[in-house]
Amino acid sequence: MCPAPVADGASRGFIIPIGGGEDRIKEMQIHRRFVELSGGSNASIVVIPTASLLHETGQNYRRIFSRLGAGNVNFLQITRRADCNNPEFSEMLDNATGIFMTGGNQLRLSAILGGTLVAQKIRRRNAEGIPVAGTSAGASIMSEHMVAGGAGNEPPAEGKVSLAPGIGLTNSVIIDQHFTQRNRLGRLLTASSYNPFLIGLGIDEDTAAFIGADNVLEVVGSGTVTVVDASQMTHSSIWDAKPGQALSLLGLRLDVLGEGCRYDLKARIGYPPKDHTVIGALPTANDKNSE
Amino acid sequence: MCPAPVADGASRGFIIPIGGGEDRIKEMQIHRRFVELSGGSNASIVVIPTASLLHETGQNYRRIFSRLGAGNVNFLQITRRADCNNPEFSEMLDNATGIFMTGGNQLRLSAILGGTLVAQKIRRRNAEGIPVAGTSAGASIMSEHMVAGGAGNEPPAEGKVSLAPGIGLTNSVIIDQHFTQRNRLGRLLTASSYNPFLIGLGIDEDTAAFIGADNVLEVVGSGTVTVVDASQMTHSSIWDAKPGQALSLLGLRLDVLGEGCRYDLKARIGYPPKDHTVIGALPTANDKNSE
Repeated sequence: MCPAPVADGASRGFIIPIGGGEDRIKEMQIHRRFVELSGGSNASIVVIPTASLLHETGQNYRRIFSRLGAGNVNFLQITRRADCNNPEFSEMLDNATGIFMTGGNQLRLSAILGGTLVAQKIRRRNAEGIPVAGTSAGASIMSEHMVAGGAGNEPPAEGKVSLAPGIGLTNSVIIDQHFTQRNRLGRLLTASSYNPFLIGLGIDEDTAAFIGADNVLEVVGSGTVTVVDASQMTHSSIWDAKPGQALSLLGLRLDVLGEGCRYDLKARIGYPPKDHTVIGALPTANDKNSE
Repeated sequence: MCPAPVADGASRGFIIPIGGGEDRIKEMQIHRRFVELSGGSNASIVVIPTASLLHETGQNYRRIFSRLGAGNVNFLQITRRADCNNPEFSEMLDNATGIFMTGGNQLRLSAILGGTLVAQKIRRRNAEGIPVAGTSAGASIMSEHMVAGGAGNEPPAEGKVSLAPGIGLTNSVIIDQHFTQRNRLGRLLTASSYNPFLIGLGIDEDTAAFIGADNVLEVVGSGTVTVVDASQMTHSSIWDAKPGQALSLLGLRLDVLGEGCRYDLKARIGYPPKDHTVIGALPTANDKNSE
């Protein structure tokens, strides 16, 4: 699905994919910032634990967000498509000031929520200005084109990533999570090679990209967000490589964003944290080679 | 060490780092090409199995290269520094038409060969035109700055890679091997961030970079060579990041080279295989975003 239209004068809420495994005990800076964006003590946060098969997931997040000062936290016990028609859930989403999708399995999430009122509400509420965060599977589902699965530890190759339609909060990125920890560069590169329009975001564990209404994301957390931009690609072997054959992809751009770095998804440019000096690109590559 | 000077009118031999785990049974295309470059039936190949602790390593490679038609194959049983003064070994290297360094531990290789006549001979013979190949540890050792160790599966961070002086056949690259399979992007990025002059080569298993005298490399094998070029980097946090803290590295260039691709290490440009069409870079990144 495409993102819901944003009304004149309104601005979309933050979209916050988290790479999984985020700190839930110590600083909890990612969750803390999400709670603040949701309104803090005035927040009404709705957790969607559908990706998880663990019964306690919803309760656990209720505890975390409450501890961080959120005024009101509920979770939607959605385990099958029929649950998505529950009018009570619909009303909770209408009144939500923040929505959080837990980890688990993103295909479970897309297969249960996809095409239901709940999915539509998430998109619309985000377009109306409320933040939507998701961790692990909950991060993958956010984009229009979702990484559904695929091998880690392998070079890019056709068929090494499986895509599925996501919930569609954004269509400018494709998201992968547990990125460094599960060695998913190959599958993100494969996804990027399918259509270079998509910016690949590889999000590490305990790391989040806070994507603002201006389509500039900022990194929060202890790991990195790896941005793959294939828009300037000079060569791809994707259309004549055999399935499983390692791909050639020339002329990619790569930004490794640590905490505080920003990336403008429209201009496709990375920025250092605000208190850092930009060192400036060097004149030509050739000059460096004579060092 | 720096590469040995190339005499007027001469040209350096191929430098052939291999990512480890190369096919030694079926097509053996990497070894086959090395044997051809060494002179085929007229070849006199010298194997240096020092990185390996296995007694049979030298014999095994003798068998492989002989099966591929190499006229003459010997190995130097060097297990300690004193062996490097063996005049017989010195003579074998003087007469070699190809040198091959096996896998094992690159610090064992550098600690035993470093600063000896054997290391000097390898550099000089390469400068005189003979090909030098090395797999796994034997690949790492080839550059002036060698990746000695470091963690896989982690984002780039100061201290996450350890460097040591290599044998110095080339000083334009730093080489990592078993690259995708052992998830070594983080440590290669760390190494590149130390000094962007170095081009990072991440070589997959069963894959080799044949670096010609013109400093253009060509990829042979079933995996990819990932080229990280930090020369146009716009920001690095390396000098103020805490040890272990994930680095920010903005404005990197990335080329993923499959079989037949080439990369010009002087111009820092990747090329597709000769029979492929270059698709051409698209005008601006912004245009793509409106798709």
